[in-house]
Amino acid sequence: MSSEFSFTLLATDGGARLGEIATPHGIIRTPAFMPVGTAATVKAIYADQLAAAGTDIVLANTYHLMLRPGAERIARLGGLHSFMRWSGPILTDSGGFQVMSLAKLRKIDEAGVTFQSHIDGSTHQLGPERAVEIQCLLGSDIVMQLDECVALPAARAEVAGAVERSLVWAERSRRAFDEYRQLGLARPGQALFGIVQGGIEPELRRRSAGALVAMDFPGYAIGGLAVGETHAAMIETLALTAAMVPAGKPRYLMGVGTPVDLIEAVANGADMFDCVMPTRSGRHGQAFTWAGKVNLKNARHADDPAPLDPLSACPAARDYSRAYLHHLVKAEEFLGAMLLSWANVAFYQQLMAAMRAAIAAGRFAAWAAEVKACLGPTK
Amino acid sequence: MSSEFSFTLLATDGGARLGEIATPHGIIRTPAFMPVGTAATVKAIYADQLAAAGTDIVLANTYHLMLRPGAERIARLGGLHSFMRWSGPILTDSGGFQVMSLAKLRKIDEAGVTFQSHIDGSTHQLGPERAVEIQCLLGSDIVMQLDECVALPAARAEVAGAVERSLVWAERSRRAFDEYRQLGLARPGQALFGIVQGGIEPELRRRSAGALVAMDFPGYAIGGLAVGETHAAMIETLALTAAMVPAGKPRYLMGVGTPVDLIEAVANGADMFDCVMPTRSGRHGQAFTWAGKVNLKNARHADDPAPLDPLSACPAARDYSRAYLHHLVKAEEFLGAMLLSWANVAFYQQLMAAMRAAIAAGRFAAWAAEVKACLGPTK
Repeated sequence: MSSEFSFTLLATDGGARLGEIATPHGIIRTPAFMPVGTAATVKAIYADQLAAAGTDIVLANTYHLMLRPGAERIARLGGLHSFMRWSGPILTDSGGFQVMSLAKLRKIDEAGVTFQSHIDGSTHQLGPERAVEIQCLLGSDIVMQLDECVALPAARAEVAGAVERSLVWAERSRRAFDEYRQLGLARPGQALFGIVQGGIEPELRRRSAGALVAMDFPGYAIGGLAVGETHAAMIETLALTAAMVPAGKPRYLMGVGTPVDLIEAVANGADMFDCVMPTRSGRHGQAFTWAGKVNLKNARHADDPAPLDPLSACPAARDYSRAYLHHLVKAEEFLGAMLLSWANVAFYQQLMAAMRAAIAAGRFAAWAAEVKACLGPTK
Repeated sequence: MSSEFSFTLLATDGGARLGEIATPHGIIRTPAFMPVGTAATVKAIYADQLAAAGTDIVLANTYHLMLRPGAERIARLGGLHSFMRWSGPILTDSGGFQVMSLAKLRKIDEAGVTFQSHIDGSTHQLGPERAVEIQCLLGSDIVMQLDECVALPAARAEVAGAVERSLVWAERSRRAFDEYRQLGLARPGQALFGIVQGGIEPELRRRSAGALVAMDFPGYAIGGLAVGETHAAMIETLALTAAMVPAGKPRYLMGVGTPVDLIEAVANGADMFDCVMPTRSGRHGQAFTWAGKVNLKNARHADDPAPLDPLSACPAARDYSRAYLHHLVKAEEFLGAMLLSWANVAFYQQLMAAMRAAIAAGRFAAWAAEVKACLGPTK
């Protein structure tokens, strides 16, 4: 495998971009969807199923892994790839988002975040240097800076404060990452991404993006979206923020989203996505299909011998009747969650593959219009 | 596939027997272990994993399936094999055991059992004819008669009453099965087994077995064991009951057991087994190995890079570290239950394969002594 991180822009079609990210653990075809492997497992899915479904990269959560089983332990065991038996690229988040949404009694200051574990109440600190160190211990291919993400709506001053703090942390993250590299803790080809904050305020986004671009990160995440604003505001802010970062670097829209969100975000310049939606929905009896979302709990599926999608390459979508899936969901059987999570991740990856093909063919807008009409009220 | 049911006794070694049962859905190598697929799924395991692990036949529960999704529904959908995507043989129990252990407000009389569903409280009746009809609708390869199983210890009169009622039901089951055959509802090659009851009383076992043998079933189950008696009493009763049924018919010891139970039961003439132990233990963080039972919840596994069994052909036992399994179990991740259930079923099938090889080699007793010493306190 290459030991260099690089992004190659292969084609553009309107705002949509086709590309490839090279990492130490392989190529990521963009636009890319990253299934979320919170605790070193994408819930209810085997790693080989992820790969066969077209997954190039998975995301893992620093917050969860630092608390259990611990970053140092995973490092001693050979790193996250080996621990969870996923040989492809891994992106880890910084832990900040989940500290703020899951942990208790947190205190945020310049040093970082002090919080209590949601597992056992123990107290932990997470600063920008430690967040990078943990991710280096995990051995992820893409490391995220610690940032402060403000739920919307929020007062402008609060969003502005989070922008400034995130910029300070970005600089400290980069400095720490460079040091860890010299110490051999970060390895060649690992890349640190900066995160643009600023809510839905163009001026704050400009301030954030400008300062990060001056620091010259190998990739830029667009954070602070999908946190309470409207869909239109999200897409508008994405579009203007994407234009503020260099075309030659990948853009990662964090925490998004529905199939239609992804299509519209790709149309507006996003290259990478992560979301728990396919797996969480799968555990709750919902399936994503080209004809929209299907609720398998619904009694109308009880006698339906048809699979979710007879044309799918994914066995979970192609080979099992809706009647059986309905039964498994009603009986709360493991296999229901297993099959629907698998089918949903496969659908998301088929959606990304179709987007990549449409961009390559120069017909992304027409493709998007057709597909959005089929997806219907799925959003 | 053959449309005839048959049993071929290939070798004996002391009380242990090596054989093959031919069914419409393929061959069952005996001694055979049947994983339990209660609600038309062996919990947390894909059907192809079961087959690759060496499973020839699975058991499904009539009680659960009659209540949800319903036997007529499964028949309309093409039968249980197609519904659950298991192409090998299936044995269904009669439903009686679970009516008596799971349902509420039951009434037992000559007609059968009246009970309330543990799912929604609805009232149902299950008599010997309906129990056979349901199993024919499901399309199982081996159909079990409805019987009455008494938990031990119990008064002799109660056990004797259950023997007589079970014999009446056996005769009615056989008559119903013959009628369904003439009607085409039971298909060629489907086989109905009788169930010997009688607690741990030799005289009652003799009464039960004698009457059933006179009815000439293609196979005999030994029921009413593993329900409260000692291990020694179970094995002793098994041995004497096995001697009461024809050598040319398979003997199915119901609801047993631990690895050591299986070894001792094979030594005493049993050919078939079912038990939830490998899957239930897997969901509770316990693994079966050749060195005994391993509790993955235990902190001593937290840093252990070794797999459960580096020599296993099962990926779940061979490819994942105990540290990772420990983490998954502690984090209550689906994948923990998935991997341990899979590894445990694979271990049980490896145990059966080893027993078959030892019988074929004429060294079952020596093999059993060695293996029981290794398994240690697993029981």
